[in-house]
Amino acid sequence: MDISSVLQGGYQHPLSRSWQARRSLTKGMLMYPIFITDDPDAYVDIPTLPGQARWGVNRLEGFIGPLVKKGLKSVILFGVPLNCEKDGSGTPADDPNGPVILAIMKLRSLYPDLYIATDVCLCEYTSHGHCGILHADGTINSEPSAARIAEVALSYAKAGAHCVAPSDMMDGRIKAIKRALIDGGFGNKCTLMSYSAKFASALYGPFRDAAGSAPSFGDRKCYQLPPTAKGLARRAIQRDMAEGADIIMVKPALPYLDIIADAAALAPDHPLACYQVSGEYAMVVAGARAGVYDLRTMAFETTESMIRAGCTLILSYFTPQFLDWLDE
Amino acid sequence: MDISSVLQGGYQHPLSRSWQARRSLTKGMLMYPIFITDDPDAYVDIPTLPGQARWGVNRLEGFIGPLVKKGLKSVILFGVPLNCEKDGSGTPADDPNGPVILAIMKLRSLYPDLYIATDVCLCEYTSHGHCGILHADGTINSEPSAARIAEVALSYAKAGAHCVAPSDMMDGRIKAIKRALIDGGFGNKCTLMSYSAKFASALYGPFRDAAGSAPSFGDRKCYQLPPTAKGLARRAIQRDMAEGADIIMVKPALPYLDIIADAAALAPDHPLACYQVSGEYAMVVAGARAGVYDLRTMAFETTESMIRAGCTLILSYFTPQFLDWLDE
Amino acid sequence: MDISSVLQGGYQHPLSRSWQARRSLTKGMLMYPIFITDDPDAYVDIPTLPGQARWGVNRLEGFIGPLVKKGLKSVILFGVPLNCEKDGSGTPADDPNGPVILAIMKLRSLYPDLYIATDVCLCEYTSHGHCGILHADGTINSEPSAARIAEVALSYAKAGAHCVAPSDMMDGRIKAIKRALIDGGFGNKCTLMSYSAKFASALYGPFRDAAGSAPSFGDRKCYQLPPTAKGLARRAIQRDMAEGADIIMVKPALPYLDIIADAAALAPDHPLACYQVSGEYAMVVAGARAGVYDLRTMAFETTESMIRAGCTLILSYFTPQFLDWLDE
Amino acid sequence: MDISSVLQGGYQHPLSRSWQARRSLTKGMLMYPIFITDDPDAYVDIPTLPGQARWGVNRLEGFIGPLVKKGLKSVILFGVPLNCEKDGSGTPADDPNGPVILAIMKLRSLYPDLYIATDVCLCEYTSHGHCGILHADGTINSEPSAARIAEVALSYAKAGAHCVAPSDMMDGRIKAIKRALIDGGFGNKCTLMSYSAKFASALYGPFRDAAGSAPSFGDRKCYQLPPTAKGLARRAIQRDMAEGADIIMVKPALPYLDIIADAAALAPDHPLACYQVSGEYAMVVAGARAGVYDLRTMAFETTESMIRAGCTLILSYFTPQFLDWLDE
Amino acid sequence: MDISSVLQGGYQHPLSRSWQARRSLTKGMLMYPIFITDDPDAYVDIPTLPGQARWGVNRLEGFIGPLVKKGLKSVILFGVPLNCEKDGSGTPADDPNGPVILAIMKLRSLYPDLYIATDVCLCEYTSHGHCGILHADGTINSEPSAARIAEVALSYAKAGAHCVAPSDMMDGRIKAIKRALIDGGFGNKCTLMSYSAKFASALYGPFRDAAGSAPSFGDRKCYQLPPTAKGLARRAIQRDMAEGADIIMVKPALPYLDIIADAAALAPDHPLACYQVSGEYAMVVAGARAGVYDLRTMAFETTESMIRAGCTLILSYFTPQFLDWLDE
Amino acid sequence: MDISSVLQGGYQHPLSRSWQARRSLTKGMLMYPIFITDDPDAYVDIPTLPGQARWGVNRLEGFIGPLVKKGLKSVILFGVPLNCEKDGSGTPADDPNGPVILAIMKLRSLYPDLYIATDVCLCEYTSHGHCGILHADGTINSEPSAARIAEVALSYAKAGAHCVAPSDMMDGRIKAIKRALIDGGFGNKCTLMSYSAKFASALYGPFRDAAGSAPSFGDRKCYQLPPTAKGLARRAIQRDMAEGADIIMVKPALPYLDIIADAAALAPDHPLACYQVSGEYAMVVAGARAGVYDLRTMAFETTESMIRAGCTLILSYFTPQFLDWLDE
Ligand SMILES: [Zn+2]
Ligand SMILES: [Zn+2]
Ligand SMILES: [Zn+2]
Ligand SMILES: [Zn+2]
Ligand SMILES: [Zn+2]
Ligand SMILES: [Zn+2]
Repeated sequence: MDISSVLQGGYQHPLSRSWQARRSLTKGMLMYPIFITDDPDAYVDIPTLPGQARWGVNRLEGFIGPLVKKGLKSVILFGVPLNCEKDGSGTPADDPNGPVILAIMKLRSLYPDLYIATDVCLCEYTSHGHCGILHADGTINSEPSAARIAEVALSYAKAGAHCVAPSDMMDGRIKAIKRALIDGGFGNKCTLMSYSAKFASALYGPFRDAAGSAPSFGDRKCYQLPPTAKGLARRAIQRDMAEGADIIMVKPALPYLDIIADAAALAPDHPLACYQVSGEYAMVVAGARAGVYDLRTMAFETTESMIRAGCTLILSYFTPQFLDWLDE
Repeated sequence: MDISSVLQGGYQHPLSRSWQARRSLTKGMLMYPIFITDDPDAYVDIPTLPGQARWGVNRLEGFIGPLVKKGLKSVILFGVPLNCEKDGSGTPADDPNGPVILAIMKLRSLYPDLYIATDVCLCEYTSHGHCGILHADGTINSEPSAARIAEVALSYAKAGAHCVAPSDMMDGRIKAIKRALIDGGFGNKCTLMSYSAKFASALYGPFRDAAGSAPSFGDRKCYQLPPTAKGLARRAIQRDMAEGADIIMVKPALPYLDIIADAAALAPDHPLACYQVSGEYAMVVAGARAGVYDLRTMAFETTESMIRAGCTLILSYFTPQFLDWLDE
Repeated sequence: MDISSVLQGGYQHPLSRSWQARRSLTKGMLMYPIFITDDPDAYVDIPTLPGQARWGVNRLEGFIGPLVKKGLKSVILFGVPLNCEKDGSGTPADDPNGPVILAIMKLRSLYPDLYIATDVCLCEYTSHGHCGILHADGTINSEPSAARIAEVALSYAKAGAHCVAPSDMMDGRIKAIKRALIDGGFGNKCTLMSYSAKFASALYGPFRDAAGSAPSFGDRKCYQLPPTAKGLARRAIQRDMAEGADIIMVKPALPYLDIIADAAALAPDHPLACYQVSGEYAMVVAGARAGVYDLRTMAFETTESMIRAGCTLILSYFTPQFLDWLDE
Repeated sequence: MDISSVLQGGYQHPLSRSWQARRSLTKGMLMYPIFITDDPDAYVDIPTLPGQARWGVNRLEGFIGPLVKKGLKSVILFGVPLNCEKDGSGTPADDPNGPVILAIMKLRSLYPDLYIATDVCLCEYTSHGHCGILHADGTINSEPSAARIAEVALSYAKAGAHCVAPSDMMDGRIKAIKRALIDGGFGNKCTLMSYSAKFASALYGPFRDAAGSAPSFGDRKCYQLPPTAKGLARRAIQRDMAEGADIIMVKPALPYLDIIADAAALAPDHPLACYQVSGEYAMVVAGARAGVYDLRTMAFETTESMIRAGCTLILSYFTPQFLDWLDE
Repeated sequence: MDISSVLQGGYQHPLSRSWQARRSLTKGMLMYPIFITDDPDAYVDIPTLPGQARWGVNRLEGFIGPLVKKGLKSVILFGVPLNCEKDGSGTPADDPNGPVILAIMKLRSLYPDLYIATDVCLCEYTSHGHCGILHADGTINSEPSAARIAEVALSYAKAGAHCVAPSDMMDGRIKAIKRALIDGGFGNKCTLMSYSAKFASALYGPFRDAAGSAPSFGDRKCYQLPPTAKGLARRAIQRDMAEGADIIMVKPALPYLDIIADAAALAPDHPLACYQVSGEYAMVVAGARAGVYDLRTMAFETTESMIRAGCTLILSYFTPQFLDWLDE
Repeated sequence: MDISSVLQGGYQHPLSRSWQARRSLTKGMLMYPIFITDDPDAYVDIPTLPGQARWGVNRLEGFIGPLVKKGLKSVILFGVPLNCEKDGSGTPADDPNGPVILAIMKLRSLYPDLYIATDVCLCEYTSHGHCGILHADGTINSEPSAARIAEVALSYAKAGAHCVAPSDMMDGRIKAIKRALIDGGFGNKCTLMSYSAKFASALYGPFRDAAGSAPSFGDRKCYQLPPTAKGLARRAIQRDMAEGADIIMVKPALPYLDIIADAAALAPDHPLACYQVSGEYAMVVAGARAGVYDLRTMAFETTESMIRAGCTLILSYFTPQFLDWLDE
């Protein structure tokens, strides 16, 4: 046997196997996505997203408190407005009494150490359900879209968000948001996490059920990236770094691990996030329920694959379970 | 809006979106895994692997014929011996009357243009169910393992296999097989496809049900790679190219897309295969059955992700369906 | 035989030979160049460009309809004005009743899914036949040339073109066009494909016959690239990406495959087009007619060479034939 | 106009255009392929290869003398045996009275400064017309093939050839020839030029007419490279350098310019040859005859493209014409 | 403020600061160095190495047991023979009743999950105190030194060590050890960790007190690397990978972080260890005792610096304290 | 012994060992940090920083003169105002009668050849002790902070400093200072050395004692870099080069040698400084006092490690001693 043929000497023991990894999953790497609705007392299960619910602001303490005790370090908030008046520019998005702003303030006062990120988009707040402002012909009007999204992001920063994370995929919004944060005095106080490589995936179904954010006509293929478009993803990542993103995100995660690896190479000096989206979470759960594998084993294998590919931050619906599993 | 901010101009139309891909899925890129059992008239459904079965040699014409008509170009054969006498060195693996060798000869005579690959391993044929030959203490004995696997591979090549594909993960087996093929006069007649980066995944459950190949004691973590071990995978790919592999494979596929991207960079001049294994196939199907997404859309998104990551050849249980879908 | 000597094991079968390619030709990769003249009922064969003709707008349905049925996905339109009043700035180029604008609107209404690109140049519309606006001494006046070309490109975008493709080779026109598209609201609606590396080749003769676009004095060697100038081509490709090109093109194709390979390396994240120009098409046909080879075999070998070199989009006069050949 | 937009300043004059090239065509870069037949007085025109003929040894002085006067520096000899007894191992290939060996000696005595290369292959001398020695089933037997070709090459070196150039594409023949040359005392006297990337092209038709070298059954696709196989070509180039090639060749030239560019990058320290094969020569001539372009202009554009792609040595049927053209 | 000036937005919160790290310290990354002496009941404090002692085999359970309970995963054993007969070839090194071999067997039986590495060197066992076998003139005799060290390493592997770690710095010892392990049947059972870049540092004083391993004449500057020799270190790392090392180590750690970074770049696919040696440990403790900083804070800052530089495994005398600190 | 195994041949002699270094420590590479207080006759020892003191301007001649005679080439001045009126914007920082400006003028007149750098920060002069100007909520107000620091730097340049070195870590201050220097006519007269990668280390304790610069509330973790943040350090280095830094500095030195190596790679064309800070100096001294090693040997080993890592300039409290040691 040639010396160069032998690799098994390096992984014959569980510990030496663990040394072959570049990093390990820790609680601090998990960010938990939470749906906040505008009925302050709401608690509504989301059937297609097992174990997740829509929460009213008054319910947050009961929900988040125990998780913080177990080591929850950060959340990302998604607004689910059910009772507001939507319009073409998403006016309710930064309503000072809207659910996201109220939840930011509530959580900051309840848990001073909890890191609070907020998704920033217009689709939950526009009458047409698209993520930007539209021309009369229903196509995206880029310039005012980016400006409006920047306005919303600044309002969340003012309310106390530690991080704003635009998921809209409008061209130019990272630059617009960063400019607004700097000019508003939040350049050194609020992190800008860009959904840089967000693909038009079939894995968003359960989220749309959760957030009620499906567009009323057409689809998002003209702004979310085509799933096969490695080149566009790479260009978007490079653009967003140049425009001021502090954290780069790839979304979804599992079927885009190669894009995460590309991002890790293109952005070696930025934290790298991925979003294990609703559909992949639901798919992993469905496979376990069908007896294909053990849920916990597969939750680890898939999540650790994201870390192996290069991520240092994971938005995951498995967060509550990992808080337990990582203590075992 | 800065010129450098604008990306959407490149993907506003379905056709321009398709141009963002580097290559497209074609029928020739699919290789269909088939389970051959030693009861020549068998046809036994595998419940955990929806739509797949164990086939006897006499059933192959009825099974494969219609697929060849639809454009099936290649298969990879897995032996499932149920009636043979297993021993420590996997003697039945190259029994000239064993199912794999009979199936090779049958398929070559029935379909002269069909490309026939054969998985090469000992685990289905050893009394202990491990993929190599063992020391008395139950650990792998590398040198005779590689030699025995080379012997089996050569016998498949002699029977007419266009490709031998060792899945055992013994150190040194690629060199041993290539040496045997060259010395046996098959160096230029038989392709050597290496399962170079085969991970100890939780996604092999349904396959083990199909092939009856679970080990009788212990596990395979001392020869299959640790799931987090990007470095070992990269070293194995480089070693196997140096030892004579004609095609490099990564297995499983979906949770290892970053490894596929690494392989594409490390092996830019070799065809690159991935195996969408039983568990990931079953998981995708389970998600569709649970209503998370449309099956066909997700089969395309996941398979195209492997192509995007760099694969040019995909071992897929979805092959029969793609033969239809690609014609629609 | 050393292991490192053996390569034939990887290409002993037609299927394994096909796996050695990085991608395959598909219908979606073909864009068909069409000559539109200003006599709406014209149909005039072009003898030096076998099988191609000048078409009037009223004839388009009869011409394009059957091709769309066979799978034609995109066309690129060249205006051939024969009855208009030409002047120094190419005023007829964006005449709202000119052949290109009328053809765009006609084709969009007839075939909503057809992708319509338009060549953008002044030479068919200027009294002097040059591709830009001239100083009194007959040399190119760069600044107004770029501005005028941008104006024309915007008018085509407004008429509904999915893609504008400037072939003029004026310095600065990509930036001027992109700026005009963004400011006109078409930044995210119209793709900009740059003839980045267009060489002063001897292969344009039949096209000039077709389009009547030979200059009245001088030649184009001060703006089209010298055929030996790899360095200028590389610089032009990089410049055009920085100035906002969505697609990079090399022209001609066959004698510039090395430039295509350079473009693929310099622009790994952009779609890459090449134009198999009139002269190379006519040359390939002439060789077949002289009995040197079979036409179809050579059409494939030359077109697949462009794909092998890195192209993902091919402007080809063989498009109608490939629509048949790819179905056989 | 931005500074970064302007490129035209570098190529406004014929001389500055010439400076954009990295090197220019000179007579010393041309090697002229000559067909030597075994009737010593033969002079037979080859209709499909315009301007080329089969020559008997006695005719060489009249044919080559004037070319040497014009500056011919090197030839490559192809044997065309019409009267010999062919067999399975190509015995006549190194018959000391065969046409190639006689021509080497004749040319060396007539023109002491002329550089004489010889193609080395078996196909003109084997009864089956294949380039190696076959197994009973008609497939290539690699080991004896490489050994036999080395034997032939050594005999040409002994006869006085300055360069032997194996075109057979058998695995391992470069190593076998180099070993034979060194052991025979010609390691420092005879250059080894490898047809490293020789593709199974449709452009060899006229040559086969000239040399009578079509195989009697089957084709050469199992040893000549698949036209789309960039990876195999890259691996073959690297292998042949490692096995002792002094010059690397790509063949054909025009539809493989990207491969030439790859070779130039992979083999930066070796002379790089390409063979403008019979079919591409005939195609260029046919295009000129059909009026597509001027022959001389196109001969220069295509040949200079090979130089631009990276070649430093060109095997060309245009050699006699270039000897004139380059003096004009 | 320019967007490109702003970095503070990325680290305004303790959690976002933690995301800027590439990996975190975990218990599994720590390996604890232990001194085993040949008095089985010994427990002797080492004054210059605060908190560390020499242990007899009978004392190991009381010492290691509580640490295993707290999460200790691995140890590395150093033999301190005080009563044996030393000679020129270090015969006692692999005495089957020597302290290291007894300790391996004891620990494996007590703690089946504990990973046991052993330092391999001769200096504790040679009469002259050098790390190899000497010529008569007192210089190193390389060949027998490597052979003897390989013999010792194999005997430790046979006794059950999971890992052998040669610290001697003799040329060629990695290849010799790997060959011995493979031929002895331990190629896939025992990990080879190379002290690849071990410098002749002034920080080994307390260790020499602990192990009694100072040479009786001369120094080790002809085999340990000169502290300024980045180039030799880089060459040694590359050599040791080629010779079969499974893990690469740099020693000492703190004043060689740049070498660790080099190692991480040169060996991206291997686990990377560093040894925080006795002197740097003692120095950090002395600084804390002098009131320069808080001990725990500095233990973390220095250890995390090794991780930031690229290490994935740390040999540390702080291990017992970190087992507590990491739980707080 | 394989040739590739042998390295010891290159370092068997003290001189050949010295050749393995890339450069050696010379007096010109040392910059000596000096604390200047506002009592002109002060001379106050700093107990936690052995051998260092606070000096009044009148004492400088007695202190610096002998060092200049021994070869001292440069100093960096830190102001320690004890009697001034501090406020929110650090008004005393550029008081024309403040200690730094007086010391600059004094030293320039006493030692015309001495190179005088000045640390630039606000923390010694602000009432709150932070390094910038604050918002009402105690957070940094970036824009006025950078402006104020630029103002102070310019005043030092005007007083005669050869170099200004901002240690504050406010975003954008390098650009602001460089702009101010250029506009003030000092662009070509005053070097700008940036504390680019200054980490929030535990090693600043003795300095804070020396300079009295601890903040009155909070800490500096929102502007000094997190110790684990390799990425932020790399980005800061690149930013500061782009913003006009003439010299890049890393601080502290010993536990950040990997960052120094990164800086050397990122800034290959700039001088590279490091600051061996108070705590690491005190730690090395404490270790020597505890008998761990010889002080001089360790001062050399640690300082030479900074040179090996890539530094060309070292701010060191060992400077007076090195002036002696380097002469021995
Ligand atoms: Zn949205
Ligand atoms: Zn197996
Ligand atoms: Zn034109
Ligand atoms: Zn031949
Ligand atoms: Zn030693
Ligand atoms: Zn400060």
